[in-house]
Order: sequence, then structure tokens, then C-alpha cells
Amino acid sequence: MAKEKLRVIPLGGLGEVGKNMTVYQYGKEMMIVDVGLMFPFNNMLGVDYIIPDFQYLLDKVSQVKGIVITHGHEDHIGAINHLIEQINVPIYATPLTRGLLEVKLARAGNLEKADLRTIQAGERAQIGPFQVEFFHMSHSIPDAVGLGIQTPAGLLVHSGDYKFDQTPVDGWTSDFAKLGEFSKRGVLALLADSTNADHAGWTPSEALIDGALDKVFKEAPGRVIVASFASLVSRMQQVANTTINNDRKLAFAGTSMVDNSKMAMSLGYLKIPEKNLITVEQGSHMPEKKVVIMCTGSQGEVTSIMGRLARGTNRQFDIKPKDTIIISSHAIPGNEESFYYTINALIRRGANVIYDPIEKVHVSGHANQEDMKLLINLIKPKYLIPIHGELRLLKQHAALAERMGIPRENIPVIENGQIIEFSNKKLKLAERVPGGYVFVDGTGVGDVGMPVMREREQLSQGGIVIINLLLFQNKNELRKPPVVESFGFISNSEAEGVIEPLVEQIETLVKNGRGNLKTSIEKAAKSHFFSEVRRRPWVRVFINEV
Amino acid sequence: MAKEKLRVIPLGGLGEVGKNMTVYQYGKEMMIVDVGLMFPFNNMLGVDYIIPDFQYLLDKVSQVKGIVITHGHEDHIGAINHLIEQINVPIYATPLTRGLLEVKLARAGNLEKADLRTIQAGERAQIGPFQVEFFHMSHSIPDAVGLGIQTPAGLLVHSGDYKFDQTPVDGWTSDFAKLGEFSKRGVLALLADSTNADHAGWTPSEALIDGALDKVFKEAPGRVIVASFASLVSRMQQVANTTINNDRKLAFAGTSMVDNSKMAMSLGYLKIPEKNLITVEQGSHMPEKKVVIMCTGSQGEVTSIMGRLARGTNRQFDIKPKDTIIISSHAIPGNEESFYYTINALIRRGANVIYDPIEKVHVSGHANQEDMKLLINLIKPKYLIPIHGELRLLKQHAALAERMGIPRENIPVIENGQIIEFSNKKLKLAERVPGGYVFVDGTGVGDVGMPVMREREQLSQGGIVIINLLLFQNKNELRKPPVVESFGFISNSEAEGVIEPLVEQIETLVKNGRGNLKTSIEKAAKSHFFSEVRRRPWVRVFINEV
Repeated sequence: MAKEKLRVIPLGGLGEVGKNMTVYQYGKEMMIVDVGLMFPFNNMLGVDYIIPDFQYLLDKVSQVKGIVITHGHEDHIGAINHLIEQINVPIYATPLTRGLLEVKLARAGNLEKADLRTIQAGERAQIGPFQVEFFHMSHSIPDAVGLGIQTPAGLLVHSGDYKFDQTPVDGWTSDFAKLGEFSKRGVLALLADSTNADHAGWTPSEALIDGALDKVFKEAPGRVIVASFASLVSRMQQVANTTINNDRKLAFAGTSMVDNSKMAMSLGYLKIPEKNLITVEQGSHMPEKKVVIMCTGSQGEVTSIMGRLARGTNRQFDIKPKDTIIISSHAIPGNEESFYYTINALIRRGANVIYDPIEKVHVSGHANQEDMKLLINLIKPKYLIPIHGELRLLKQHAALAERMGIPRENIPVIENGQIIEFSNKKLKLAERVPGGYVFVDGTGVGDVGMPVMREREQLSQGGIVIINLLLFQNKNELRKPPVVESFGFISNSEAEGVIEPLVEQIETLVKNGRGNLKTSIEKAAKSHFFSEVRRRPWVRVFINEV
Repeated sequence: MAKEKLRVIPLGGLGEVGKNMTVYQYGKEMMIVDVGLMFPFNNMLGVDYIIPDFQYLLDKVSQVKGIVITHGHEDHIGAINHLIEQINVPIYATPLTRGLLEVKLARAGNLEKADLRTIQAGERAQIGPFQVEFFHMSHSIPDAVGLGIQTPAGLLVHSGDYKFDQTPVDGWTSDFAKLGEFSKRGVLALLADSTNADHAGWTPSEALIDGALDKVFKEAPGRVIVASFASLVSRMQQVANTTINNDRKLAFAGTSMVDNSKMAMSLGYLKIPEKNLITVEQGSHMPEKKVVIMCTGSQGEVTSIMGRLARGTNRQFDIKPKDTIIISSHAIPGNEESFYYTINALIRRGANVIYDPIEKVHVSGHANQEDMKLLINLIKPKYLIPIHGELRLLKQHAALAERMGIPRENIPVIENGQIIEFSNKKLKLAERVPGGYVFVDGTGVGDVGMPVMREREQLSQGGIVIINLLLFQNKNELRKPPVVESFGFISNSEAEGVIEPLVEQIETLVKNGRGNLKTSIEKAAKSHFFSEVRRRPWVRVFINEV
């Protein structure tokens, strides 16, 4: 019988896309599930990526007993280096997830420091008061798991990212038996993936992609270049299979793609006979019809291979006229512009570019509505807590569950930081803790916040104008004409016409010399620019007096 | 028989979304079709909107005989005020399109200056050497037309935006008979809308929306607020009909929505009995279940009503707990983030928000692949020129036409500025002229170009640091400690730790006094910031010597 309260503390992924992180607490002891990153919104200027806010945990480090990672995608593991610098406790993961963690930890020099523990799907780990059962769930990466979390206060099920793929690439379907067993034991609450809650029907199987890949490979008159995420190990297998079936050879390109494929092959999650693999260099001496290159950059990231190919700046190889490029991903929400920009630019450079919906070369790895319903019926939870997704999707997930008969009051639609508390198997909303964005910009973590973001926003909209004055001390007199410089405000050819009249105003203000000169010049400049060109540059005045 | 060459000069809409503008030229004489605007990409910082580049026409103004507008959407009429300031020639449009033009011209004080001529669908206009037949095409706005352009060199057909809606809101289907007649006369080239070239099947009829609206209205426990584009007159009619059927009253809110609805009612394109209309103010005194408000802001524009409701800053009315909000539009490509941000924010403020795919409250107004095929089969053109759409979509349109039997060499996939020339009914690519972006920023048109954009980009990524020095003339000595100020670079709490060590470096550099002090300080500062925080602010040094 539970003496203590069971708490669920969502620190990421609820009300947003990415940076998934959930903390479970029983009594004082805690366990972290996943620690992902997310990509910045277009208006988060200069931010490299975003990690969850760990603040709430920092004075409770000794209470944290372990970190569990459900699978190896960036939105679940991407902030691991930041987390273990603050909270270095055992990290539990399946072999492939561990492999991906190792690659990431090694790159930050954290591999020795980290305490990694392998757990196979089907096994259990005791993490503080939590008996955690790892069970397999099919997703777009092998070795993904959901978690059964047995606590003295009841059994929780954490779905992880999943879809019910009946014909997965590795043949390993979700652990339906275990899900059924949970329901027999009685599940207090299910925390389940809401990513596709507004998609009707079932999510198609990854197997659907095989046919599309094969068709495109067969029709390709020259090289085939496939872009995807570096962590999409199942997609690597599918591309390798299609390569072999079409009597071609496969080269991986790009550091993370190469590192991850090597690691996945060494662990047996990716099976490609050595004779079917080549390097990009070897491929360049072979007939084009024999070559397949798989690389990163499916989102058009400027520094990725695909981003460089689109801009004609890739050094290792370039687009050739008969190339067929397959974009084996969908645009990450918010990144549609860069995604399609890249496709258009690759076409402009002569390639034939294939992407969904032209051929079904990508399917989502997340549950659609019918998958979600099946999960709920398999688990039969008392409470459903929608996780992973924007607020609108959490809400859709809740609406779907309500239509299935779960009472509305048993489906809390909450966002990051809203703690949930169970006592005597009853759920209530407890306090709200910080659950916002921590911006990573260069080496700075969290030192760039909303005030700096607003300043950048202002600079980005109107640029700046700097006015530098040299005055005689205590005299209303300039030693030299004012120096006015602008950046990001107006083109050089137009600048003079707009700035010249301001200089006269400044000279008059100096002569009149009343009040705060700096403030009055800044005010005059702003109002001058607004009336002249309806723009609001940031204006800064420096007054030097001697 | 044609003595002169016939030319098609695409100045907008080819290889992009929006700012549609095509120029037809026979001999020396020219006719402009449409003059739209487009919304800036996320990386076009501070730009209000983008208009076509008219440069090529500016020394040929006397050759331009007329402007034809196919329908009243912003991407076809939005740059009209900019155009007529340079090229003020007769503007031909159907009554509703003329009405929307008048609203727009009046707002810029250009109404008196403009020479507007009404042409009904089914009528002809002689514009220079072009005999132009206006024929009705169904689209998401009433009174849209395509153009049959008879020239001595052959007949061209310009589709305008269209879909083959068999049950349009106003009951007015596309002019199939005229399309068939064109094919009998023999069509040299068809210029056709490619917007949805990667969408399989037929575009659904606008009628589909009626059922969805009715369902949502019936279930709504309080007010219904519908957001859409101010130019979507058919949607206004659908919302009005549903309002009446559900025994509610309708208020329009927002200047452009109110202006356009009044105009459309006065012209008979929008039919709403007076007794069913209320003001927002009147609605506030009525039972919530009786009220419908239709307003702008379906894209979440910050200054629109919906944008303000999402932020809690709308003065006329605010969200109430039982409100149902219908977003009757799709996200404009590139604007997905703001679109969904707004939906999430409205949900967070307590509203129930309905959008496609939750209910089918919006359908595209553009032809899908089956509509495109029907158009090609109706017209049977010798050449097909895909217009309106990103390069990838022009290319899909071409692939579809090729599969239908039009030879590949008869389907030029071109982008803005690539002139097409017909002589003896043969097509060739002629010279390329400017066809890029003209940025409108405040009152500036074209004065902000790519260099300023790159400066804003740099400012937005790393902010700025300004260093102001006061030195003794001709001495390597500071009169005062250096002043270092930053903006958008780092938070105040962190600034000191990063900037302090730089001040010491500056003092040393001044003492050493070798070479160009300004340059060496800028260089030192940049390298200091990069090594400290891996960021690249813009650095500017001002040296004052007395």
C-alpha cells in the first residue's frame, strides 16, 4: 500500500514538439525518462537548440536515482550531455539506444563520466522505488521501448514514441502481450504519445517505403542520393536492402550518419554485407547507375551535406544532371520553409528530387488515431495523460480518449511544469514548476533568455543606427561633425538622404543643449526615421566630452 | 498571320508562392495580367511584404496597354498601388474584383487616379493587340476568371487560380463550354495554375465546408468566432448561411473584413438579409449561443483580431470560456509556425478551436492533379507553361502533362524573368530579365535588398557590441576607461564576466598602439567573444581623439 505520494513532473514535450522529458517521483525519490532537445522556432534568433529546464531538479540531485532513455532520437536523447553535467546518475537504455548515447557522449568527452547500463526490452530494472519494465514498441528506430513503471502507488505505463507497425523493418512488433498483461494488472495511468493526434486512421507501416524506394531506384538513370536523419537506423536498413536488390553499392556520407551506421552494424541492428558498402570516394570511380549515397540533411540544414549540395558548396561530391535525390523524411514542424527551399534548390541544380507525396518515401513513426485507440484499449488505464505534442494535439488525444469512454476528468490536459500527484489512486494537479525553454547559443546554456531574444528581434526588424558625438566639455558645441553609422537599416545608396537631415537636427539639439542630450537625440532620431521610412531601428548615442 | 513575335514575360509567381504577375507582349505592345504580393520568408527580416520586380517595364511604360486582374486575392492584386504609381494604364476586372481593387486603391488614396474598367465574365476586351476573353473559373472567391488571349500569333489561355468545383457556393461553375470552344479554335499555349500539383485526386468542393460548419455551429455551447481571409467572399456567404440556419446573428469584425463584406453585399455577391447582421457591440448584449463573429487573422498575424485574441490584447472583445473558434483557412506555406502557435494560444486561453483536419472547415481553392488533367484535356494546348507555384510544383505539373502525352519539349519549366518567345507557333526561351524580390519595408520599396538583409541576419544571430574610446590625440593613452555596450548579445547578468576581460585587452592594445587600432580592437573583440561563448556579434569600434 502506498504511503507516499506518486508524482509525475513533465519538464518537456508537453505543449511543444521535442525536448521530451518526464520525471517520476515517489516519496522523495525520482527517476527521469528521456532528455531530448528541440529545434528553435523561427523567431528564436541565433539559438542553436533548446533543452528542457532542469532547474526544479537542481537542489534535489541526490533524490534522482536514474535516467531511462526510451529510444535514440534527438528529441529524446539530445540534451543528455547537458543533463549529466548536473545530474550524473545511471542511465538505462536498450543496446542500440545505448550505442547512440555513446556516440553522443563521446563527442562531448563525457563517455567515461557516464554510467551507462544496458537493459534489453523485456527486462526489468529497479530504479529507486520504481520497478521499470522495458517493453518493445515499434517506432521508426529499432530497439525503442515503452515503460511499465510499478510503484507502491500503482502501475504507470509510459508509451514512448510508437506506432503499431505490423510489418516493421526488423520484424519486431510491439509487445502486445505485455500491454495486455498490464491491463490485467490494472493500470493507474497511461502516458501516451500525442504527436499525430489529428491524423485519422492507422499510421502506415515502414514496409510501405520499400516499394517506393524500389520503384525510384529502378527508374533512376544515375546515382541515387538518399537524405534522412542520422538516427533513422531502420531507414538505413531499407536503403541498404533496396541498394542490394538493385545491384548497386551503398556509401554513407556525413560524420553522424557514418558513426551511427558503424555503431548499428557492430551491434547487429543494421545488417549490410561488407561487399555492398563503398566509400563516397570509391563511388566516384564507378558507373553512376551502380552508386547509392545515404547522407544527412533531409531538413535542409545549411551545414549538412544536403544543405551544401543545394547551395553548391559540398566539397566531397556535387550534384550531377542524372542524379535522383530521395528526401526520406517529412519537414519538422516549423521547418517547412527550409525543407522546400532545399528541394527547389536541388531541382534548380539539376537533380530529380523525390519526396512524399510524390512517392511514399517516408512515413511517420508515430501513432495515428487508430493506433492510439488500440493502445488505450490494450492498456485500459484509469487515467490518460497525453504527452509529446503541441497543446492542440494533447487536446485531440484527450477528445479521442473521452469518446472511448474515459471520463473527461480522468484525462488531464497539461503542459510542461504542471505536476500531477496521485494519492489513494486519485489524481490531482499539484504545483507548477518551471518547464520552459533553455536556449543553447554557442557554449552558453540559458544565458540567452527572452530579453536578449527580444533585443535580437528588434535588431532583426530595423537594424541599428549609432551616433557618436565629440563635444567640448560643458559647452553646447561639437568638436567634430556627428558620426552616424547604420547597419541592417537601409541600403548605402539610400542612407545619405535619410541620415543627412538628422545630422542637422542633432547639431541644433546640441546647440540648444537643454535636458538630457543623449535621450533627446535618441528620441529625435527614432521619430525622424519613423516619419521618413516607417522603420524603427535601434538607436544608440555615444557622447564624448573633453 | 503573325508578323511580330509573341512573348510571355513572367515577372512573378513562377518558382514561388505568391506575387503573381505575367506580362504578354506582341510586337512592342504589352498587357499585364495580375500584380500580387507575397509574404516574406522567415529569413527576410523586417520585410513587410514583397512585390514583383517591375524594373524591366519601367523604360517601356508607353508600350503597356492595360492591366487585367483575374480575381481579388492578395497574391493577384496586392501590389496594384505600387504598380500604378509607375504604370497607370486601364485596369480591367470583373465587378467583384473591381470592388476589391477599389477598397485597396482607396486606402492608398489612389482611387481617383486609377482607370478601372468593368468586364463581365463572358465578355471581351481589346487591349492593344490582345483580344481578351474573360471566362468564369470557379475558385474560392466569386467572380474569378481565366483569360483567352487571342493574338495574331495564336491563342493563349491563362487559367488564373481555379479548381473545377461542381457545386460552388454561388452555383456558378467554370465555363466548360468556353474551354471546349478554345480547344476547337486551337490553343497555342496554356498557362495554368500549379499550386497543388503534388496533390492527388480532385480538389473537394467548397460545398464540403457547409456540413462541417453546420456541425460545429450546432455543437457550439457559446459564441462561434470564424477566422478567414478578408477576401474570401464565398466563405463569408457560407458562414452567413450557417448562421441563419442555426438561428444566430452574424457580426463582421476587422476593417478589411467589414469593408469587403459591405462592398460584396452592395454588389450582390454576398447575400445576407439585414436582420441577420449585428455589430460586435450588439452581440455583446445577446445570449452567447446567438452570436457569430467573423474576422481576419486566420494566419495568426500579430496585428489581426485573431492574433490579438491569442495574446489577450484585443480591445473590442476577448475570448470567453465557451467560445468555439473556427480557423477557416490552411497555413500559408512558411507560416505554419505562427498558424499553430495561434491555435495553441487560443486553446490555452480557453477556447475550443476547430481547424482542418479536426473538421473540414477549409478546402483549397486550387486545382489538384485530376482538375489539372481535365483542364489540359479540355484545352488541348500545343504548349503548356506551368505557372503559380514553387519550382518543385511547376515540375510536377510538367510531369503530369507529359504523362498525358504533351511532349516534354513543349512544356517549359521556367522561373520568373525567363522570357518565352513564340514565332511561327514555335516556342523558344529568350533572354532572362530581372524577376526577383522587391522588399517593402515601411515606406521603403526596394531600398532594403540582400545586403541589408544579410546585415539584419548577422545582427539577429549574435547581436552587437559597441566599443567607444576616448583617447589623447597622438598618444597611446586613454582619457577614460573604454565604454563597451552590447545589445542582443548576452544577458546582463552574464555580460560583465565576458566583457571585463576584453576591456583589459583593449587597454593593452591602446598602449601598444601599433597599426590600425580600430581594426585590431574589432578583431580582438570578435575572437575573444568566439572563444568565450562561441558567438559572433557584430562589433563596432568608435575612436575619439582630442
